[in-house]
Amino acid sequence: MSAPGVTRERSFWAWGWADRFPDDETRRSHAQMIGALFGREVELRPLPAIDDVRLAPPRVPCELPFATSDRAARIFHTYGKGYPDLVRAFRKDFTRAPDVVAWPRTEEHVVAALAWCASRNVAAIPWGGGTSVVGGVEADVGDSYAGVCAIDLAAMDHVLEVDPTSRAARIQAGALGPRIEEQLATHGLTLRHFPQSFEHSTLGGWIATRAGGHFATLYTHIDDLVESIRMVTPTGVWQTRRLPASGAGPQQERLILGSEGALGVITEAWMRVQARPSWRASASVHFATFEAAMECARLVAQSGLFPSNCRVLDAREATMNRVAFDGTSVVLLAFESADHPLDAWMERAMAIAATAGGACPKGIKSSSHGAKVDRTDAAASWRQAFLDAPYLQSSLVSMGVVADTFETACTWDRFGALYAEVAGAAKDAMFRATGHEGLLSCRVTHVYPDGPAPYFTFVAPGRSGEEIEQWRTIKAAVSDALARSGATITHHHAVGRLHRPWYEREVDESFLRAFEAVKGELDTARICNPGVLVPAGPRGARKRSCGSTG
Amino acid sequence: MSAPGVTRERSFWAWGWADRFPDDETRRSHAQMIGALFGREVELRPLPAIDDVRLAPPRVPCELPFATSDRAARIFHTYGKGYPDLVRAFRKDFTRAPDVVAWPRTEEHVVAALAWCASRNVAAIPWGGGTSVVGGVEADVGDSYAGVCAIDLAAMDHVLEVDPTSRAARIQAGALGPRIEEQLATHGLTLRHFPQSFEHSTLGGWIATRAGGHFATLYTHIDDLVESIRMVTPTGVWQTRRLPASGAGPQQERLILGSEGALGVITEAWMRVQARPSWRASASVHFATFEAAMECARLVAQSGLFPSNCRVLDAREATMNRVAFDGTSVVLLAFESADHPLDAWMERAMAIAATAGGACPKGIKSSSHGAKVDRTDAAASWRQAFLDAPYLQSSLVSMGVVADTFETACTWDRFGALYAEVAGAAKDAMFRATGHEGLLSCRVTHVYPDGPAPYFTFVAPGRSGEEIEQWRTIKAAVSDALARSGATITHHHAVGRLHRPWYEREVDESFLRAFEAVKGELDTARICNPGVLVPAGPRGARKRSCGSTG
Repeated sequence: MSAPGVTRERSFWAWGWADRFPDDETRRSHAQMIGALFGREVELRPLPAIDDVRLAPPRVPCELPFATSDRAARIFHTYGKGYPDLVRAFRKDFTRAPDVVAWPRTEEHVVAALAWCASRNVAAIPWGGGTSVVGGVEADVGDSYAGVCAIDLAAMDHVLEVDPTSRAARIQAGALGPRIEEQLATHGLTLRHFPQSFEHSTLGGWIATRAGGHFATLYTHIDDLVESIRMVTPTGVWQTRRLPASGAGPQQERLILGSEGALGVITEAWMRVQARPSWRASASVHFATFEAAMECARLVAQSGLFPSNCRVLDAREATMNRVAFDGTSVVLLAFESADHPLDAWMERAMAIAATAGGACPKGIKSSSHGAKVDRTDAAASWRQAFLDAPYLQSSLVSMGVVADTFETACTWDRFGALYAEVAGAAKDAMFRATGHEGLLSCRVTHVYPDGPAPYFTFVAPGRSGEEIEQWRTIKAAVSDALARSGATITHHHAVGRLHRPWYEREVDESFLRAFEAVKGELDTARICNPGVLVPAGPRGARKRSCGSTG
Repeated sequence: MSAPGVTRERSFWAWGWADRFPDDETRRSHAQMIGALFGREVELRPLPAIDDVRLAPPRVPCELPFATSDRAARIFHTYGKGYPDLVRAFRKDFTRAPDVVAWPRTEEHVVAALAWCASRNVAAIPWGGGTSVVGGVEADVGDSYAGVCAIDLAAMDHVLEVDPTSRAARIQAGALGPRIEEQLATHGLTLRHFPQSFEHSTLGGWIATRAGGHFATLYTHIDDLVESIRMVTPTGVWQTRRLPASGAGPQQERLILGSEGALGVITEAWMRVQARPSWRASASVHFATFEAAMECARLVAQSGLFPSNCRVLDAREATMNRVAFDGTSVVLLAFESADHPLDAWMERAMAIAATAGGACPKGIKSSSHGAKVDRTDAAASWRQAFLDAPYLQSSLVSMGVVADTFETACTWDRFGALYAEVAGAAKDAMFRATGHEGLLSCRVTHVYPDGPAPYFTFVAPGRSGEEIEQWRTIKAAVSDALARSGATITHHHAVGRLHRPWYEREVDESFLRAFEAVKGELDTARICNPGVLVPAGPRGARKRSCGSTG
């Protein structure tokens, strides 16, 4: 399944491109690797075929001229790419497919789609790249709607305008990462927002979910790159003004950022872009303990040096990502600039790392003015592993392994306790759910002066047919641990339908009431992505005690 | 008038400390200076005495145990410090004094004050330092309220908790700038938020109005230093969680930041603090033209160097601030760090300045590790003039001069047209209003990769008794010019009652409706700072065509 006019096929069940899904030989090597770690055999299961999927007929007629109820389109728009999505799709369970898929080519089409949904009491689910891992695009909206319409913005993918003086570009919301970069490259510019989903996610999706990107410091979220936004709501088009900053009332854009489709459909945005970097410097610093590596990251985050990369890998992550094999933890440090050489920055960062006990056996790698960067270093290994990781997860799903990642953020003073709490909860829950202690690893993807954003991966052997329940046990346990630790349920994966119980515990009730009021004002028919952030159905359906531990 | 327990007196009509108001000799020198510029004599007028102020009796009884209806308290809480405030106070016009002034010492007091206001249909105006220049604390709320109660948080001024690991501190909202810094200094920390009002404004006021501070780049607004906020609304206490970052829904704090008291009273916040800087480097770079200076600022803003200061002074500002007297424009560049020497940063910034045609006759000033900084340089001259400026404005008011400043922000591509539009409108309006071409100067206080925040000062001779109308003609003309140029009505002075007509033209109606809905949800009795951001009185009173040019 692909957008109209696109030839390369995306998998209907797994992550990403169909032709990049691991072949059987690779899958067997995955099975061997994971089997060795589990101490038991892991079996490949046969891959699903789209022709075997059974689909109920659509519940509402397809009345929009730019929409379809095609079987393939409905299948492709049923799920995001979270663990339970992959499992259900692998099982060919598409009972909750949307009834209609709209492909707007203009903003007028988006307006018409929302009007049609409102008139038919059809839930409208904005669709970017469909990579949500939190049920943000899942066509499961309860029984109070006549049907579901996915509004896929794939055809709205142009860079419409470039302002080289202010370094800004007006970009349509449906543009995937590579489409944005290829169009900006002709102007010598770049957005430099590189989430793991880069190839398969869109500008509109990034803005709606406050996606985390390339930069470990400063411009960590897409929020920081947004200059103005245009969003179609059911009651009007909301256009914010192009401004570098303003002190006039609460910042409008911040109410759209993170609204996850619950208020309308983002159609375009003016984004802050940059000159392409000419200088790069990077180093992999090894530490005897994870604690020492974290201390290095804290000191660098508080130094005012603002590295583009400051990632911490614990010993297991370092091994899995082929960065270190001796039990050390690693901090990947990198700087980049379009303006100046980075020696002073890198030297100071390395001095900080040394005070925290770091060693840098391979030294600093630098490049400048378009010189070819040596891609054999640890950072390059890590980068490739980073991009391959979602394919690996899909491969593990195809052999019945329970494998997922979750991320959070907390202040530095709480990190030690949080780590202990989460690790304890994860190991306990993995054992309860699977009878195996499983594997847990931790990396830190973004660092702030006041705290880190740790990212955890858990892997455990599943029992056939019970994987989702097993996963749910583990997910609930670690999410409760995050809540107990005063951390956030998500640093950059949004709330969607999956995280809502913990979101409602994390966010003050005053804000939940405020956001419900905003939705009531803008989405009067309550058709916009029902169940995301706010409960589906009539207003007031929210209950405070949704979290699994109350 | 001062908060209970404070002995140093603030002026009841002019800016700041009563004992720092210019003496008659200084005022005469101001009159000579300004008279020379106008080409006509400017006369000192006699200063007002508080004993001559006539006050109507309070309209509501003073029933809260921590409140007063004292004459001095009511006078002091009538106005902020905008131009029309100074003029009216100078004229001893306090017809709109609040009826009651509450001095809460605890959050329970704040809750009680709001409950009392709601029960009596009394407008509640949160009061920090009372330095609003946009009518944000003005006790003029229309006729639909039984009275007005100013809630002055002066007694809630403690740093309650410090987390040195995460570099954060929990601070009460009523703390003035110096109180914050003196308490943090005992921990070797600093907030480093230094607005021009620093001595007389509070943390709560900064958060409520999204104040602009010390830093010309990166941490330009208080927004960037806020970790979490606690606010008492009429329907509950809103506490956000201490997090370095989160991707869970729209950022809660951003709905409080800039809410200007319209949703409730901020009582405390966890703020991101820093180590005190050990290294500083600064330079004054001179340019033949303002355009060249602006080009330098743009290149530096887009360089990724992040100077703490990157201020542009046009030739008139450079002269007034005693930085240059030869018709050149000046860029004040500075870096500071608690972590590292700044040579590489400063050298690169100077190289950029040179490419834009800048000359630096006095070279770079550096200091490190607590060495005494030479305060005789241009930057120091500018700094002193900066802190004295509000006293000078009050002095000019006392001689009938129409003098005010306003600031905005726009993208770099629009700056040239904006400058021409604003300068033309200001000169035309000054001549229409005063019969004199007046003086206009421009400086840039903050720079972003995508645009600058210019700050304009206008000065013209007033006619006795007509100064406010004259000022209003000029203010409306320049505000209309900002709106026509696509700029913002304020970069860091908030909306208040004064800017609301232009705010309503600037911000999309969808957001205005959304914010009204939030207010309706949280401030059900609509008592919170009525007339700020949202019209006073019953919901729906807003009209779109409030701007003076429709």
